[in-house]
Amino acid sequence: MNLKDLAQALDIKCEYDLEITSLNTLIDSNKNEISFLENKKYINDLEKTNAGAVFVKAEYASKVPKNTIALICEEPYLNLAKASKFFAAKIVEIDGKKPIIGEETIIQENVFIGKNTVIGDSCTIMAGSFIGDNVKIGSNTVIYPNVTIYRDCEIGSDCIIHAGTVIGSDGFGFANTKDGKYIKIYQNGNVIIGDDVEIGANCAIDRAAFKSTIIENGVRIDNLVHIGHNCKLGKGTILTGQVGLSGSTVLKEYVIMGGQSGTAGHLEVAAFTTIAARGGVTKSITTPKMSWAGFPLMEHKTWLKLQGRIAKLLK
Amino acid sequence: MNLKDLAQALDIKCEYDLEITSLNTLIDSNKNEISFLENKKYINDLEKTNAGAVFVKAEYASKVPKNTIALICEEPYLNLAKASKFFAAKIVEIDGKKPIIGEETIIQENVFIGKNTVIGDSCTIMAGSFIGDNVKIGSNTVIYPNVTIYRDCEIGSDCIIHAGTVIGSDGFGFANTKDGKYIKIYQNGNVIIGDDVEIGANCAIDRAAFKSTIIENGVRIDNLVHIGHNCKLGKGTILTGQVGLSGSTVLKEYVIMGGQSGTAGHLEVAAFTTIAARGGVTKSITTPKMSWAGFPLMEHKTWLKLQGRIAKLLK
Amino acid sequence: MNLKDLAQALDIKCEYDLEITSLNTLIDSNKNEISFLENKKYINDLEKTNAGAVFVKAEYASKVPKNTIALICEEPYLNLAKASKFFAAKIVEIDGKKPIIGEETIIQENVFIGKNTVIGDSCTIMAGSFIGDNVKIGSNTVIYPNVTIYRDCEIGSDCIIHAGTVIGSDGFGFANTKDGKYIKIYQNGNVIIGDDVEIGANCAIDRAAFKSTIIENGVRIDNLVHIGHNCKLGKGTILTGQVGLSGSTVLKEYVIMGGQSGTAGHLEVAAFTTIAARGGVTKSITTPKMSWAGFPLMEHKTWLKLQGRIAKLLK
Repeated sequence: MNLKDLAQALDIKCEYDLEITSLNTLIDSNKNEISFLENKKYINDLEKTNAGAVFVKAEYASKVPKNTIALICEEPYLNLAKASKFFAAKIVEIDGKKPIIGEETIIQENVFIGKNTVIGDSCTIMAGSFIGDNVKIGSNTVIYPNVTIYRDCEIGSDCIIHAGTVIGSDGFGFANTKDGKYIKIYQNGNVIIGDDVEIGANCAIDRAAFKSTIIENGVRIDNLVHIGHNCKLGKGTILTGQVGLSGSTVLKEYVIMGGQSGTAGHLEVAAFTTIAARGGVTKSITTPKMSWAGFPLMEHKTWLKLQGRIAKLLK
Repeated sequence: MNLKDLAQALDIKCEYDLEITSLNTLIDSNKNEISFLENKKYINDLEKTNAGAVFVKAEYASKVPKNTIALICEEPYLNLAKASKFFAAKIVEIDGKKPIIGEETIIQENVFIGKNTVIGDSCTIMAGSFIGDNVKIGSNTVIYPNVTIYRDCEIGSDCIIHAGTVIGSDGFGFANTKDGKYIKIYQNGNVIIGDDVEIGANCAIDRAAFKSTIIENGVRIDNLVHIGHNCKLGKGTILTGQVGLSGSTVLKEYVIMGGQSGTAGHLEVAAFTTIAARGGVTKSITTPKMSWAGFPLMEHKTWLKLQGRIAKLLK
Repeated sequence: MNLKDLAQALDIKCEYDLEITSLNTLIDSNKNEISFLENKKYINDLEKTNAGAVFVKAEYASKVPKNTIALICEEPYLNLAKASKFFAAKIVEIDGKKPIIGEETIIQENVFIGKNTVIGDSCTIMAGSFIGDNVKIGSNTVIYPNVTIYRDCEIGSDCIIHAGTVIGSDGFGFANTKDGKYIKIYQNGNVIIGDDVEIGANCAIDRAAFKSTIIENGVRIDNLVHIGHNCKLGKGTILTGQVGLSGSTVLKEYVIMGGQSGTAGHLEVAAFTTIAARGGVTKSITTPKMSWAGFPLMEHKTWLKLQGRIAKLLK
């Protein structure tokens, strides 16, 4: 989409001709992408951005790099939300190629497979599952019944996805207007799942707002787990039942999270970290191989000590 | 159903002829409805009821208003449960009109649409979804794959319901018999969802026991959220991942609930309240625009202070 | 499978001819089953086992009973995992008998029913549901839309299973290799559900690793509940919304668990126990009819007292 047309649609002044292909964060944007600065704590990212254009308030316009076009507006995040709709894919592809199905792959009845989708060899896709448009699935993967895989998602080889699980639903993102409406940020990214991943029943893994929610090789996920948009799960991560990850959580390799534990968003957990059941992670954990518990989170041994001290209160 | 026949079926004495159309609470009943008094804390409601008849213990019979018939019994709630079955709709309608589908609405394959159902214009109903009998859906609404909408539910325009979500499942209600059986209270109400509502993946929203579970305009619900029967979510409410609302929770407009937070039932939360992640609401919140956290719940700033005090215990 | 062939496949020395039919725990194994000892705290079980063979480290070989063959290896649990694959049923049966459907049973469209499956009289199986191979369902049971029942599971009469619920998904079990891979323990058991059981929407109930996950008569389960493999729920148990049970939890009859409560695995809860909302059970509860709360769990009255003491910290 041409930047001039986009700006006009949003009622922002802009006379530059530039082909815009998508939206992205300040850090990751390239010269054909638009980004935004809403929160001034990301001002350093603004100064370093390679974005073609950014939505920005007038007061920060001077910080916009030379090669980036400043789209001056009062509500940058709201404009990003409005812009996101222009880059949203169709909900359902009408045109496109018939899916390609590998050899010895079993597709049961009542399965929907979208346009341009490619499924490898020796897979089993069970009844009632939905494989959206433009999906890629490797070889030897089992999709149990009533699974939903939204468009554009990728799943590796030797994976097992249990019944009822949803992969690629929209992340939870919207901007507020001054009169109390929520404007959807269209989630134009996808989910990419590596090889040898097993995901339990009735989980929900959201697609990224921009780019990808990533689940690396060898991950194990139990039932009823919620993974927000733009999370990244390192190799060998283990999430047990009813874990919830807020958006943009990064778990490095071999992190283990106990039942009903959770994370606040936009944080990183070091490799080989263990979070006990019900643990609530609200800040990044930078030292690997430690065990944590509680909410607020503390070292597991501290939590045990604390329980002793709390028990004393009762005497 | 005639009251005399109903009473006879329940082995309760009653000689009055009265057409009964449904069951309801003491407060909301009209003269063709039956209600009940089990817990004496609702005795004031009994005195004010407009119900045609009430199940009531002998000791409270004198409190039944003049125009209301007292159905004297030892176990009023149990009798209500037994009565509820007589007012339950069929699980599957055999007769009824073919559904009416609006213009430019896309219905993918493997979709079930029930009798008497009306779907508006420009909707997208994706594969594997179930739209029960007597459902109404507005215009421009997207139902992602494998969604289930039970009979009699209503969904507005411009809504998005993500994959695997269930709307209108039975609320969790039953009465105990003395010998340890649970008698189902048939959930004869429905769910009514307003316009511009987005609901994430694999949520469960129960239908009302009587009347409606209500989700007003502009609400945003994340993944794996549980909403019990007879809840009412005000305009612009935001529920993040894995929130759980017990039955008859009322959230006024623009309440925000953080991840994995919850409410006990039969309470009300004032407008513009914020509940932090994991907060557990067990009493009504009457002052609007405040922030709360913890379980038991306390003001968010108190909770932060408390964490400081608890940390001191470790020294 | 012949033991010699199995041992050879695992690169373990064994010259005995013995027909092995399945894997099992030390306590429950019979002479045609294999078991294992990984954790020395089960050494007493090893001494009493009736298993035909056990995977065991060299240091414990002397404790293996006379009639049991010791399969000496360095990583018994890992070998069990590798062995489990040989006893796994096919994901999809190709051969087998057509299902038998009882009289007056309604099967809506888009329902998949597997080979050898038997469904009783007067059931309702709604659209989009998946009933796997070799499943048994009693009479008068309602399966709402988009439910998935995996192969080999059994459901009684007069049950109600709400939409989106998954019964019989694989338990969360795997063994670690030294180089950081997880080897799946194939979940070769099933789920057995008694009569008069109601299960809410979008629950996940895992099949057993060996033998059965058991849900007895009269159980009531709310929405979004997670039940791990090999759990056993006694008669009349009540689980409210978002409860999570780790594997091998045993709840005796009439246990009640409040919303978002949970259990660690391999423990037992005495009859008529009440766990308050958010309660976290980490040890067995042996005295019946008591009320508990908190995490760590304590008597409910103690928990209330503790909240008073904690409140004092703020003064």
